[in-house]
Amino acid sequence: MFEAPYLLFLGDAPDGLAAKMAQGIYDWRPEAAVGQLRMDGCNADMGITDMTIQEAVDAGVKTLVVGVVNRGGIISDAWISVLVEALEAGLDVASGLHNLLRDVPALVEAAEKSGQTLHDVRIPSVQYPIASGKKRTGKRCLAVGTDCSVGKMYTTLAIDREMKKQGLKSTFRATGQCGILIEGDGVPLDAVIADFMAGAVEYLTPDNSPDHWDLIEGQGSLYHASYSGVTMALIHGGQPDALILCHEPTRERMRGLPDYTLPSLEQLRDTALPLAQWVNPECKVVGVSVNTQHMSEDEALAYLKGIEEKMGIPAIDPFRQGASRLVEALSCL
Amino acid sequence: MFEAPYLLFLGDAPDGLAAKMAQGIYDWRPEAAVGQLRMDGCNADMGITDMTIQEAVDAGVKTLVVGVVNRGGIISDAWISVLVEALEAGLDVASGLHNLLRDVPALVEAAEKSGQTLHDVRIPSVQYPIASGKKRTGKRCLAVGTDCSVGKMYTTLAIDREMKKQGLKSTFRATGQCGILIEGDGVPLDAVIADFMAGAVEYLTPDNSPDHWDLIEGQGSLYHASYSGVTMALIHGGQPDALILCHEPTRERMRGLPDYTLPSLEQLRDTALPLAQWVNPECKVVGVSVNTQHMSEDEALAYLKGIEEKMGIPAIDPFRQGASRLVEALSCL
Repeated sequence: MFEAPYLLFLGDAPDGLAAKMAQGIYDWRPEAAVGQLRMDGCNADMGITDMTIQEAVDAGVKTLVVGVVNRGGIISDAWISVLVEALEAGLDVASGLHNLLRDVPALVEAAEKSGQTLHDVRIPSVQYPIASGKKRTGKRCLAVGTDCSVGKMYTTLAIDREMKKQGLKSTFRATGQCGILIEGDGVPLDAVIADFMAGAVEYLTPDNSPDHWDLIEGQGSLYHASYSGVTMALIHGGQPDALILCHEPTRERMRGLPDYTLPSLEQLRDTALPLAQWVNPECKVVGVSVNTQHMSEDEALAYLKGIEEKMGIPAIDPFRQGASRLVEALSCL
Repeated sequence: MFEAPYLLFLGDAPDGLAAKMAQGIYDWRPEAAVGQLRMDGCNADMGITDMTIQEAVDAGVKTLVVGVVNRGGIISDAWISVLVEALEAGLDVASGLHNLLRDVPALVEAAEKSGQTLHDVRIPSVQYPIASGKKRTGKRCLAVGTDCSVGKMYTTLAIDREMKKQGLKSTFRATGQCGILIEGDGVPLDAVIADFMAGAVEYLTPDNSPDHWDLIEGQGSLYHASYSGVTMALIHGGQPDALILCHEPTRERMRGLPDYTLPSLEQLRDTALPLAQWVNPECKVVGVSVNTQHMSEDEALAYLKGIEEKMGIPAIDPFRQGASRLVEALSCL
């Protein structure tokens, strides 16, 4: 979709959190992030080389990636002049912001003049097909969660990293804007037209060699009243051979839905697995990935042990422990 | 969304099937269909008064509804001149075609000049919200199917008609273009952006008086690999108090998916009900609606009796028997 290596644009990020997308790219694709560009007043820092646009071009950068959330939902004039300079210098510009690059006339004009491309990764750039439901070659693993934002992307990225480390064949398949910025490719599933959701997932995870794993980033939750339809499309379009259940045990209410508590991991398993088996009878739930950031090490380990005993499958926190036990479980399929 | 009464435009329909949308409107809203307009070569006939545009205006018609499928996906020049005449005479024009009225410059120009509106009902005209999952007042019934095109729209329309006949409060809530053309309002759910699907269904079925029934037209099927996400959004956005299971017993393969057989009614019940109860713990499966058009009367009645015995709920074909037993079952909730 867009080319590495990247210059990470941190703009005037007031703090590190505002540059969360740049951090994600740096954490998961450090080899692609050759430099950062920080404007006056920027309080975020990836700890990589500060570069001007020209230095980035000289270093072989292909794409400036907007790695910062804009304040007030506006792409400020201060940003625009930097982005125009990047386009004029021969860089593409990629962004996952709600406010689209293509809606800023100065950027459209600069891109046209320079022949460079604006990549708004929140918006589909492809006419996806209707899903066919046909069996594809290769293996697929999908992360499903008890809620939104419980670590599904982190989990699939960690599995991908571990598989590559072990010399196994795998591809992280991004379905949200952060994942797409990290991978440089993917499907912004939340923004796809309803009829084409499952087809977009099929498009994202085509036939592959029999020993290759597509590691599909999940979205939403079957139990999240706002987004469950997106999750359903991932399950039927992804035709997973393996499901990983993701959970955040200290969360008391569904994200954005104060009237709802979270389902249990057992409920999630018993709901997701039959739905997945309808399109792939061989599908199995192979493991549990728990975000234990709000627990002490002891609490976390005890919690994970309890899950393993109850459910009979590996339960890990990939941030604390890495994903090797999930890779081991997947390798048995 | 658009105003009755209607002039049904049958164009140059080669046969009755091509005018299926006009037939649907006439079948379900005969009081709104005051006349038909047939061009040279039209072989469809609703059996209502043939009218010129001027006669329709004089009869109080507000909207010309395109009730015919266009050949080859093109809105022909012959049609365009009639539609322009309608706009100039003060009628709005509504269409459920894939090819949009708004993409025909002559129609856009005529609409602008006359101040009339082009209604492309396949395309959302509203910015729908993200679903909140909050409980609403009033009652809701959703039709869910073992497959696409098994009679979900017909079933909810038949229940609506029977409820109105009995003096009960009800509204048919259309979620597809045929239903929207019949009702004059609704949400074209297949065309909604993924993130807003469940919110669109909440928008369609707002708070209402406690004894009012929203009868929500279903879409797709939880078991249809291409469209299951849309169905999921209907279940979580609709928060149904009642589900009606819809089925076509002679169909051997899922529509458009030759690799898939249909699930049983029991499978559908056991999958759909827990998902619905997550957002509405009181939800019940109240009945089964079977499209028995490919069975003899004896076969049909025996089949329905068998379903009732197995499942312990009313099983009817609304086309053969009307929907009174489903209304009775709903009235007990």
